Amino acid sequence: MVIATDTEMPTTRQVVRLGIIGAGRIGQVHCLALSRNPKAEVVIVADFFVKAAEACAQKFGIPSAVQDWKDVIRNPAVDGVIICSPSDTHHEIILGAAKAGKHIFCEKPIDYNLKRIDEALATVAQSGVKFQLGFQRRFDANFQRVRQAVQGGEIGEPFMLNIKSFDPAPPPLAYLKQSGGLFFDMMTHDFDMARFVVGSEITEVTATATSFDKEITAIGDITTAIVSLKFENGAVGVIQCCRKAVYGYDQRLEVLGSEGAVDINNNYPNTATVYGADKIKRDLPLNFFMDRYKQAYEDEMISFVDAVANDTPTAVTGMDGKIPVVLAFAATKSLQENRTVKVNEILYGKSVM
Amino acid sequence: MVIATDTEMPTTRQVVRLGIIGAGRIGQVHCLALSRNPKAEVVIVADFFVKAAEACAQKFGIPSAVQDWKDVIRNPAVDGVIICSPSDTHHEIILGAAKAGKHIFCEKPIDYNLKRIDEALATVAQSGVKFQLGFQRRFDANFQRVRQAVQGGEIGEPFMLNIKSFDPAPPPLAYLKQSGGLFFDMMTHDFDMARFVVGSEITEVTATATSFDKEITAIGDITTAIVSLKFENGAVGVIQCCRKAVYGYDQRLEVLGSEGAVDINNNYPNTATVYGADKIKRDLPLNFFMDRYKQAYEDEMISFVDAVANDTPTAVTGMDGKIPVVLAFAATKSLQENRTVKVNEILYGKSVM
Amino acid sequence: MVIATDTEMPTTRQVVRLGIIGAGRIGQVHCLALSRNPKAEVVIVADFFVKAAEACAQKFGIPSAVQDWKDVIRNPAVDGVIICSPSDTHHEIILGAAKAGKHIFCEKPIDYNLKRIDEALATVAQSGVKFQLGFQRRFDANFQRVRQAVQGGEIGEPFMLNIKSFDPAPPPLAYLKQSGGLFFDMMTHDFDMARFVVGSEITEVTATATSFDKEITAIGDITTAIVSLKFENGAVGVIQCCRKAVYGYDQRLEVLGSEGAVDINNNYPNTATVYGADKIKRDLPLNFFMDRYKQAYEDEMISFVDAVANDTPTAVTGMDGKIPVVLAFAATKSLQENRTVKVNEILYGKSVM
Amino acid sequence: MVIATDTEMPTTRQVVRLGIIGAGRIGQVHCLALSRNPKAEVVIVADFFVKAAEACAQKFGIPSAVQDWKDVIRNPAVDGVIICSPSDTHHEIILGAAKAGKHIFCEKPIDYNLKRIDEALATVAQSGVKFQLGFQRRFDANFQRVRQAVQGGEIGEPFMLNIKSFDPAPPPLAYLKQSGGLFFDMMTHDFDMARFVVGSEITEVTATATSFDKEITAIGDITTAIVSLKFENGAVGVIQCCRKAVYGYDQRLEVLGSEGAVDINNNYPNTATVYGADKIKRDLPLNFFMDRYKQAYEDEMISFVDAVANDTPTAVTGMDGKIPVVLAFAATKSLQENRTVKVNEILYGKSVM
Repeated sequence: MVIATDTEMPTTRQVVRLGIIGAGRIGQVHCLALSRNPKAEVVIVADFFVKAAEACAQKFGIPSAVQDWKDVIRNPAVDGVIICSPSDTHHEIILGAAKAGKHIFCEKPIDYNLKRIDEALATVAQSGVKFQLGFQRRFDANFQRVRQAVQGGEIGEPFMLNIKSFDPAPPPLAYLKQSGGLFFDMMTHDFDMARFVVGSEITEVTATATSFDKEITAIGDITTAIVSLKFENGAVGVIQCCRKAVYGYDQRLEVLGSEGAVDINNNYPNTATVYGADKIKRDLPLNFFMDRYKQAYEDEMISFVDAVANDTPTAVTGMDGKIPVVLAFAATKSLQENRTVKVNEILYGKSVM
Repeated sequence: MVIATDTEMPTTRQVVRLGIIGAGRIGQVHCLALSRNPKAEVVIVADFFVKAAEACAQKFGIPSAVQDWKDVIRNPAVDGVIICSPSDTHHEIILGAAKAGKHIFCEKPIDYNLKRIDEALATVAQSGVKFQLGFQRRFDANFQRVRQAVQGGEIGEPFMLNIKSFDPAPPPLAYLKQSGGLFFDMMTHDFDMARFVVGSEITEVTATATSFDKEITAIGDITTAIVSLKFENGAVGVIQCCRKAVYGYDQRLEVLGSEGAVDINNNYPNTATVYGADKIKRDLPLNFFMDRYKQAYEDEMISFVDAVANDTPTAVTGMDGKIPVVLAFAATKSLQENRTVKVNEILYGKSVM
Repeated sequence: MVIATDTEMPTTRQVVRLGIIGAGRIGQVHCLALSRNPKAEVVIVADFFVKAAEACAQKFGIPSAVQDWKDVIRNPAVDGVIICSPSDTHHEIILGAAKAGKHIFCEKPIDYNLKRIDEALATVAQSGVKFQLGFQRRFDANFQRVRQAVQGGEIGEPFMLNIKSFDPAPPPLAYLKQSGGLFFDMMTHDFDMARFVVGSEITEVTATATSFDKEITAIGDITTAIVSLKFENGAVGVIQCCRKAVYGYDQRLEVLGSEGAVDINNNYPNTATVYGADKIKRDLPLNFFMDRYKQAYEDEMISFVDAVANDTPTAVTGMDGKIPVVLAFAATKSLQENRTVKVNEILYGKSVM
Repeated sequence: MVIATDTEMPTTRQVVRLGIIGAGRIGQVHCLALSRNPKAEVVIVADFFVKAAEACAQKFGIPSAVQDWKDVIRNPAVDGVIICSPSDTHHEIILGAAKAGKHIFCEKPIDYNLKRIDEALATVAQSGVKFQLGFQRRFDANFQRVRQAVQGGEIGEPFMLNIKSFDPAPPPLAYLKQSGGLFFDMMTHDFDMARFVVGSEITEVTATATSFDKEITAIGDITTAIVSLKFENGAVGVIQCCRKAVYGYDQRLEVLGSEGAVDINNNYPNTATVYGADKIKRDLPLNFFMDRYKQAYEDEMISFVDAVANDTPTAVTGMDGKIPVVLAFAATKSLQENRTVKVNEILYGKSVM
């Protein structure tokens, strides 16, 4: 792939020209990150609600705002697209962008249908465009430090992983109804993190879950889940997810290994401790993913732009996007059947997809 | 039950007179605790290796040392016995002591056979003696503070529990061969802690496990296990056990609830942090259960002596001793059959016992 | 003051147009912050080394680069200047900018001569321009949280302050020779912080100091100092400064009050802890002021731009710039004369200035 | 010195026989510690309030209780005395005990009159008895770890010390009136700790202080003090004392050195953290010296008994008792004269003693 350059200037003048598809909250996060990145330029933004696209264009000084995402992929000035539109449009846009030769950064998920995921990944592969999935946690300093400790041998061979991933409060029911459920909507991030830090594929999952909220129960979803994992390298792990932690967004992780262990704590808005007559207190952690992963969102975009500009592999591949969905299917099946499910049952089975 | 008193002195002079059965390491821990307890007096110590009984007697100023535990329960000056002999003798001694009208403090386990446990508990019940099991962790300030937070409503309704319980290093193979395996030898303490802090019975368990040690694998045991739990009150939980954490004895626990969460950290020999040119360092946690639970061992003995002296219920009952064994059977079955096992399958089933 | 606006657009289109004087490290930090601030526009940059000005202009897309700072204050398109030139030029540029009606953001110090400081402040006052001094720590989330705790009554009446302020390593001797010495170069930041968090003026100082470096001793400077403070409100305090902390930049602060206390810790690149067979380790804190106060530098510039745009008072005044210099003189005198020095001796005395 | 032994048994049967002088709170702390020490036996207890002596004797099984401390030093069965009587009796009892050939453990202070201290120390030296002063903090695991770090070279050459020493609340005025004032009553412990961890003598002190309590001000005392120190080895330090910290007993210390730093935190009753919807909370530290230094009190008594039993030097000498009093005089003089005071002015001067 050759990326477009403004002129025949030397490579230091290379700027990756991007189109944003979806001008909502996450689209704007990426616009901000790209506005700070001297190697990138956002040349067009699309949103089905064209007013949103126009507002975004004005806010970030983007020259063009359109309604139809196809106008983005048709635009010859566009090197790549940032897909931030609703999940059920990802598959179609990926196919279109890939066929148009545009590099692709896509928010998770690719899709929740494994056949459509495979189709999207195959199309990307044939077209030769870069593809990066939006697992921004991989760019977080804490998770990266854990990966470095594990991969660098600081804790020896990993034995056991524990991930805790709690949201401050459940999203609205309307959102939950179309979210795919906790395993797909929430735990796919944690499945990715498990693979990322342990550096080995998950072969078996076993799920236990409960719901503390009657409305969420009524729509067939759960609020609180524990999924045990077995990895190809012999390690085991467990992911704990919960839709509600009143003290804020709780994102922690520990790995125990043959020569030691590593854990990470949450990030806080300040380091102050207040000592009172009854208790010692500190402020709550950064409250949600937009604050907690602010730098990670910026860094994942830098990474994508660099991969395009330098023609190097992206940091989060299409397969990295597919496997967590497979694992979410396996966890669902495990919960339904009260048994350990081998991931291969999903990959090659037929019942669920 | 009326306890023996030295004379017809007022109750403040009441001293509980005890016999120690088993003069090994844990027997001596209890002798030390009792030597510091003005309400208790150890009047006799028994050990099959009579030299050990004699050495213990001399060290702690105990007037009588014998070989046969039956000499302890026959002794009319003895109000109660502290059973610290090998696990496979517990059943017989409990039966003997109960029939002799002696109060019983028994190190875990009662037995690993559920029929024999039931027989022991029935005999205790018929005799009316006090019975306390040696789950010393219940007396630890950290675990008690968690229980207080959960039971006192500080975190609302509990949603999810996580227990981490890692030993510094595996015990010798010879020990492991007769230990009953990780679920029985190690995780019964954690099953008890799960019930203690959540305050609800466990109804289902699901186990995932691995082994990092070929010799341990060869004897059919595991080194690293994850057991997911469902509680009667709707909460879920997960226990992580490992035979090896090179940085020391790691005993932590967290509970997430509807109004908050509580966690505990390990105990350390000092609070010093050393800041160097490459890292910030602190010393390792207290290394093993004798150090970590030193105060808890003393306090469980105070609790037992008080229960006897004041004719009040003991803090850890016979049923508290039985249920973790049932759970260990359920975890074993879950691991064998790769499925969630309802605890009722063990309690009323026939296959395992 | 009326600030220039691009056109007769509504106030939301107001953009503060700024000139940078001094294109070195800190000048570029401000350029970056301003490039991210939609309310500001850098229209010119000056540096005696004109190549540096040109490089800066290219890097941040600034339309004009010049050698002479006078070209900045003469420029009618400029609303305000950001003074980042060497300390000994600050006085002259402040006078020039104020007389030209340009708002002023000035890096510390205004000057180290009290008469010249007074002259600069008087000229600023007469001209009516905004003036903000570059005490960026006031914008740091940790220090702000302490101030909030103290001023908001969370700890009652403050009794005692402790500030620790250690650099990773001494600067080069060449720098130290013209730095004014530790009290002026380093501790003025801490004097400001003491006033900021306690919210009361310092009336007496007493200094104790030592030097661990022969070369620094040889030029008449110190490496390690303790300065005790008395505040007008009756509180006492102590500042500890050191030129060398091998583990990195150490910036901590504690206030003890009648109803509690508050302290802050350093900021770290990640929250990971690694547990090894010998020690428990974490990475070193953010190493120096550019990393530690990255966000504070951005926020102080937002604050200045807002003060200009909205015609509101600046967050750090000229007097806030003068008083720490007075305190540095008092500390110097205290050290020379081995006695407590009342700050009034400096403000109204004649010997030192 | 030869210590008495019960019989001509081998040395392992040697028991140090002690008399307690003063049966108040601290006397009972020592009785408890000695009751747990198999190498020691308390054979007599004296208290001017003979009922207190009798109650103590009954509680700890001490065979003899008397009113007059002279009956203790006359008793041929007594190898040494533990002086826990009011401070103004220490001098006389030390002289009497030393002349009677009894080893001496003495609570602080020896006296607050330097001539009487010198007389006491000279008498002890002539008699050849062991003498240990009750600076129990030297036996605390945290302070010992700091000393080990400094003396063992973990932080290189020490540059700067900071001690924070805050009581939960001021003692009653009646106590304060006869206490000698904050420098003598409270800070002598910290002066000792400064010497203990830095391992060098203090040569200069400079004091700053205030009072937040009118009644304490009215009796000429202070509540809050900062004393800067210079050490013989070139290091500097600062001690902060306050009579009131509503969150409890606060005892912390930091040393910065050429190769690193070391600090210690307080001790807490448990390690639990509770995460709520508004704050993250933990319980207050151990509240006062009896809880905080429980183990240190036991260990200092073990150390004294061992020194007597093995005829080895004591861990805290008479000179260790004198120097903090000299430093308290120097701090008082510094506060009165608003200047740095060289310690030699007190040691060899005439005005203060």
